[in-house]
Amino acid sequence: MLILKENIKSIIETTDDELDFFLGKCSNKKFKKKEFLSSANSIPNEVFFIEKGLVRVLLNNSKGAEITSFFAGENQFISNYSAFLSKKPNPYAIQALEKTEVIVLSREAIEWGYNNMKEGNKLGRLIAEYYFIQFEYRILDQYLLTPKERYENIEKVFPNINQRVPQRMIASYLGISPVHLSRIKKEI
Amino acid sequence: MLILKENIKSIIETTDDELDFFLGKCSNKKFKKKEFLSSANSIPNEVFFIEKGLVRVLLNNSKGAEITSFFAGENQFISNYSAFLSKKPNPYAIQALEKTEVIVLSREAIEWGYNNMKEGNKLGRLIAEYYFIQFEYRILDQYLLTPKERYENIEKVFPNINQRVPQRMIASYLGISPVHLSRIKKEI
Repeated sequence: MLILKENIKSIIETTDDELDFFLGKCSNKKFKKKEFLSSANSIPNEVFFIEKGLVRVLLNNSKGAEITSFFAGENQFISNYSAFLSKKPNPYAIQALEKTEVIVLSREAIEWGYNNMKEGNKLGRLIAEYYFIQFEYRILDQYLLTPKERYENIEKVFPNINQRVPQRMIASYLGISPVHLSRIKKEI
Repeated sequence: MLILKENIKSIIETTDDELDFFLGKCSNKKFKKKEFLSSANSIPNEVFFIEKGLVRVLLNNSKGAEITSFFAGENQFISNYSAFLSKKPNPYAIQALEKTEVIVLSREAIEWGYNNMKEGNKLGRLIAEYYFIQFEYRILDQYLLTPKERYENIEKVFPNINQRVPQRMIASYLGISPVHLSRIKKEI
């Protein structure tokens, strides 16, 4: 849990005591490739911090087609955060794309942090703001960039993603067909 | 500023003293129809709380076409929040669609709140989380609902929007052509 600890220390003022108590409420968990960290249409009660591995967020659209909407890798938080926050189920699921090791931050641990850590709410605010910005820029890219430019950007956002993920998932994430993606790759 | 005061009181524990000091740092501003609250490619230093009126968020896409990406009305906060938070300019602008009266929450006021209000960071966290959820559900709707269903939903999200906004902006918000929108309206 060292990296998560350093990560939190870089964001807020905290003490080792406070952090150790918080992390004592968190647990480690391993997932096999293809296993689900979080299933669709349920209310998740945790946020994951990825220590090792890679996951994707997916859902089935109105036509029953599977969409890959997001990837997350080492040292990133991932959660069906809107379902976690609103306590309302939604169709998003989270699946491991490699053997994945995570720290599980349970709702209880997170709420303990808000109520007891001196800057717990500040941490929560900065994390929510960070993901809000990520979201906004992803939408902005769809308005402003061509599929080719977005493909070229994907490596910056998710290093080595091309070597780690099937092309059909990358195409789905970019909102284009696999045929369109292979045409773009030939062009480059 | 009464409604904003009640609004904040309903979200966090605070005192009249704390709130009066905070609101003392805020100011009232009026905008004419078509006037810009916030211009594209600038770094905004404020969040607006709309007391009266209606605004839209807009941008020009890569082909130079104007897109309406969001609306906000009475008793809602609106800001180019990602540019405000990241202090990086982006192409979003905010324009009044009617005579609009807002409370301006300056960066200075907001930072004062984080540093001095007992639950200032909690307020910031809950607001960022709220807008995160809104964002996520808007993206989810695009995956799960047909344009017709999204059109039928728009009144729930923005009451009376159909009477207040040109149809071409509603079509743009829904991501469909004005012709497609008028076909949907004939069907209903």
